[in-house]
Order: sequence, then C-alpha cells, then structure tokens
Amino acid sequence: MLFDSLTIVGVGLIGGSIGLAAKSRAATRHVVGVGRKPESLVRAQELGVIDEWTTDLAAGVRSADIVAFCSPVDRIARQALDAASYAKPLALFTDAGSTKANIVRDLEAKLPGHPRFVGAHPLAGSEKQGAENARADLFDGRVCVLTPTARTDTAALERVTLFWQALGCEVKRLTPEEHDLALATTSHLPHFVAALLAGSLPPAWRRFTATGFRDMTRIASGDPSLWTAIARENALALAHALDKFGERVGELRQAVLNQDTDELTRILTDAKKVRDALGS
Amino acid sequence: MLFDSLTIVGVGLIGGSIGLAAKSRAATRHVVGVGRKPESLVRAQELGVIDEWTTDLAAGVRSADIVAFCSPVDRIARQALDAASYAKPLALFTDAGSTKANIVRDLEAKLPGHPRFVGAHPLAGSEKQGAENARADLFDGRVCVLTPTARTDTAALERVTLFWQALGCEVKRLTPEEHDLALATTSHLPHFVAALLAGSLPPAWRRFTATGFRDMTRIASGDPSLWTAIARENALALAHALDKFGERVGELRQAVLNQDTDELTRILTDAKKVRDALGS
Repeated sequence: MLFDSLTIVGVGLIGGSIGLAAKSRAATRHVVGVGRKPESLVRAQELGVIDEWTTDLAAGVRSADIVAFCSPVDRIARQALDAASYAKPLALFTDAGSTKANIVRDLEAKLPGHPRFVGAHPLAGSEKQGAENARADLFDGRVCVLTPTARTDTAALERVTLFWQALGCEVKRLTPEEHDLALATTSHLPHFVAALLAGSLPPAWRRFTATGFRDMTRIASGDPSLWTAIARENALALAHALDKFGERVGELRQAVLNQDTDELTRILTDAKKVRDALGS
Repeated sequence: MLFDSLTIVGVGLIGGSIGLAAKSRAATRHVVGVGRKPESLVRAQELGVIDEWTTDLAAGVRSADIVAFCSPVDRIARQALDAASYAKPLALFTDAGSTKANIVRDLEAKLPGHPRFVGAHPLAGSEKQGAENARADLFDGRVCVLTPTARTDTAALERVTLFWQALGCEVKRLTPEEHDLALATTSHLPHFVAALLAGSLPPAWRRFTATGFRDMTRIASGDPSLWTAIARENALALAHALDKFGERVGELRQAVLNQDTDELTRILTDAKKVRDALGS
C-alpha cells in the first residue's frame, strides 16, 4: 500500500477515475472525496469511487497522506493554499490540471515552506463528465506529465511519481512552462479548433456531416467552463499556437486557390506521416 | 433484383463496399469490377466483393445495367465519357465522388445525349483504404446526396435513387453546386484542418498527445492524392470555407489574448450545442 489515505478534491471524471484506479490497484487504503455538490458525492460513493465524502475542504484533507486536486484549473491553486493550512505537515499535494505554469508559480510564491506540491497532468480524458463516467483504467498506459521545479522536495517527487505510476501512467517530466507550451499545441489548440469547426456548421448542413466531422468535433461537447478556464490560464501559449495555426490556414487557402498540386500533396503527405506515426 | 448487372469502376473502400452491399442486399445479380491493378482486383474477387474483374473499361461496362464510378474525383468524368461509348444505350451511370459540380458539368457538356448519369455522394468513408476494408454495412443509415439537374432523365433518377437506397442509404437531393458548398464545410474543411493539426505537431511533442488530438487528426491518415484531387475540384468553395475559418481562428485568438471569458464561453457553448445535436 503506497499511501494510507488519499483525498481527491473535485470528484469528476478525472478525480473519480483516480479514486477507482487507486483502489483497484491498491495504491491507497482509504479514499476521501471533497466536492461542492452532496448529491454528486453521494453518487460517487455509491459507485465505489470514494469511501467517504465531505463538502468541507479542511475536514477532507486533515488525515490525508496525499491530496489530488482535480478541480477546474482556475481553482486548484486557491484550494491547495487553503488545504495547506489544514493538512498534515508532510502530506503530499499533486493535481490533474491541464495547465501548469500559473498553478505552480502561485503555489511556490505563496507556500514557500511547502515544497511537497508536485504539479501533474495525466493526458487522459473524455468529452464525458462526472464520476459516473469514471473508469479504473482511464490512466492505463497514458502519459502523466510531472512538472517539478528546483524547489520541489526530492522525496516528494519520488513518491508522487510512484503514485501516478500506480494509477497506470507512464510518467514524464517537463518544466511547467514547457508543459504549457507543448499542451497548447497538442491539446488546447485542437480543442478550440474542434469548437470552431462545430460552431461554423449551419443547422441546415448538419445532415451532411459524416464520421470525419463527428470525430473531429467530438471534444467540442466538453464542459465550456473547464476550457474557458484553461484558455485563460494558458492564454499566451494558446494565442501563439492559434496564431501559427491561422497562418497555416492562410497558406493552405492560397495553395487551394492556386490549385497547387505539389504544395497540397506536400501538406497532406507530411500530415499523413505524422498521424500514421501516432498509431490509433 | 433491382439490376441484373452492376459494374464498379474503382474497387477501393467505397467501390468494394458498394459491391458487398449490393450483393448482400440482392440489389444486383452480378458484379463486375474494373480497376488498374490486377492484384487488387484478384484480392477483391477472393473477398467476394466482385464476381469478376477486368482492367479494360470497355469490356467491363459492356453488359452493365448500372455503372458506379468510384475512382478519385479527378478521373470520374473522363472514365464516364469513355464508358459511354461502350455501355448499353440505356445503362445508368452514377458515381461516389466527394465533389459534384465539375463532374456533372463536364458530363452534361460532353454527353448531351446521355441524360442517365445521376451524380451521387454517399457520406460514408474511413481513413482506411482498399477493398480489404470494404464493409457491406458501410452505407447503413448514411446520407447519400444525389445531384440531378434539369437535364437528368426522370426515370434514371428514380432508379438510381432505388439503387442507393438498396445499399442502405438515406437519399437526399441537392444541386451539384449546393452539394459542393455544403461539403466544403462539412467534409473538405475538416479534412484539411486535421491535416494542418497533424502537420503542426513537432516530433518531440508526439508523446504529449491524447485521445482528443488523435481523434481530431485520424482522417489525416487518408490518401493524400484523393484529397489533393478533391481540393482541386472544389477549390473555390474550399478556399471560401478556409477563409471564414481563418477569420474565426483570428477572432478566437483575440478573445484568448484578452482573456475574454464571456466571448470564450459563448464560442464553446455554441459549439457544444451544435455538437450535442449531432449525436455520437
């Protein structure tokens, strides 16, 4: 048993899957869920995602050996700061936020005596939401990026690495800034592009969509508030990615207008190579 | 039995699936495949996709009651013109091309005495290619757009409608120009956007992609030559769609830079509504 008691703050799809994975893989004996809506927490407990729950952060983190913050990215730093006042002095903190630089910077500035926060981002998810869609195998074989800094406690980093590995993840390390730059291109840009594609479909043409359109826009069904928060937290990197993407759209448009077979073939062939290399 | 003899020109994923669907649903007694590569045609025959094959278009269409052209869009009009010299006078022609205006215009100009071509586009496909990936149920419940014009023979239109319905399609009608405009947004734009996303991924960041990126770029594994031809055939409508899309990318970039929560929420909420309405 890696940890005796795990507290999950924010028991949605990701938090719930952490609970299921931690229990099914015996990474922890006891799981406490902290949330805002009692009815969701009752349901999560019924589903076996958590062992007990509370809406009181202070009570929820008091006995924890490790706390995983799985709230929307604009709430994680605030909650971790609050929790630090109530948690055991050696409790480890980690999170599952899709952005890292702001969160890590905030916590290091405001919690200088608490180097046991290790930022994390498991690259797993779904357009589905809520603990009722949680899965014990959500993290199986998925990359989890940890973003330690020079200030991170070495022993804490090792233990948090073991935690995410125990959930099924392959752990990689990046600086918080490298993480945000990479994820702007690999996750945040695609999400917003999916939204733009879906949003540009006139109702009369819905019947003329096929699997390509549906696959490409599926993630646009995600929770708007989560992604608004991600865009705000990673504004500069996302704006940069959109800028470069917009340039490529313009270049492609020109190649289409020119009926430039060579350039179109080059764009499509390069893309096919990259996509084929990713596997299914 | 709707037709005694069907000839499929281009026995790939779509042509092959037409063969399988026509036979399994008893829409036709006999299926002839015409193609360029004997080894592919032998394989298609082994798989039960076609009953016999030839690489000679003239021989392949001679006994056909209906001919379905399933080649790349830049070859369909040429092949149909050639085939018209050899086919029975009352043989029906249809196709499965992803673009329609050029093909229909070409054929009507060059085959004024042959009003029995009915342009078609079944909205079914896959990033996979070849008859070995053909499926008898590929068209089940899929929309097939027919693009008759004022010159199309009425009886031919009825029979071709029955043909596509027999394969499992729900038949809709658009003018060739309406088709190309709608499909530029619902199919061609998404394909090229997927290619741009895949093509903008630096190799070092491949490991930081998750299901969202993979789902959105899956179609970028499609055959570059097919899509280069589609872009050329539908250049104006696709360039227009790219232009509008590029504008939206620019507006979104500004909203991200401004950390404009209201505008980001509006974009994401509108997109979610559209996507939720499409179903899975």
